[in-house]
Amino acid sequence: MAESLELEFDERGLLPAILQDAHTGQVLMLAWMNAEALHLTRTTGDAWFWSRSRGELWHKGATSGHFMRVSEIRFDCDGDALLIKVIPTGPACHTGQATCFFRALPSKAENS
Amino acid sequence: MAESLELEFDERGLLPAILQDAHTGQVLMLAWMNAEALHLTRTTGDAWFWSRSRGELWHKGATSGHFMRVSEIRFDCDGDALLIKVIPTGPACHTGQATCFFRALPSKAENS
Repeated sequence: MAESLELEFDERGLLPAILQDAHTGQVLMLAWMNAEALHLTRTTGDAWFWSRSRGELWHKGATSGHFMRVSEIRFDCDGDALLIKVIPTGPACHTGQATCFFRALPSKAENS
Repeated sequence: MAESLELEFDERGLLPAILQDAHTGQVLMLAWMNAEALHLTRTTGDAWFWSRSRGELWHKGATSGHFMRVSEIRFDCDGDALLIKVIPTGPACHTGQATCFFRALPSKAENS
């Protein structure tokens, strides 16, 4: 499989996966995949992750109904990060926001 | 500082940082920041990282001349990932490609 040849899972057996809306370009979330989550993602067409907090495979949308349908899987020059373009069936964030990145850090000037 | 209140650095003291072109929306790279790299990024306006392979702070562009000028820093709902919108002064990837994510995994059908 391509992933065994070209991907570099970290010492925990994980790769960070960036999810980006295939239509709007909005970055939706970052989560983690082990080899099995990546295999499930490639074979089912839905994004699957490894939940570090729960210690289990996580079919994104299984609880919320907000699945991330995979359009394309890209990997970076070092083979240690994934960029997954998706068509979401609902908000990516558990808060109901479209993206998990809904907050900005204040600038240093505002914050000092 | 906001980062000490709301951000959750991992057990290595690192956060993954996604760099996205502020104008085109293209995802350029994923790298890692420790608290000092984030502080330097916020105070200088250029992206700084922690190089895990070299074990040192890394001013992106110091060698290549391809700096990543920071437009906005966002963080996710769990406070454990950053999304940094940048205006690049050159290609993000050391290969000369605009993005490090220049390769796609073949589909399972193509690859089986």
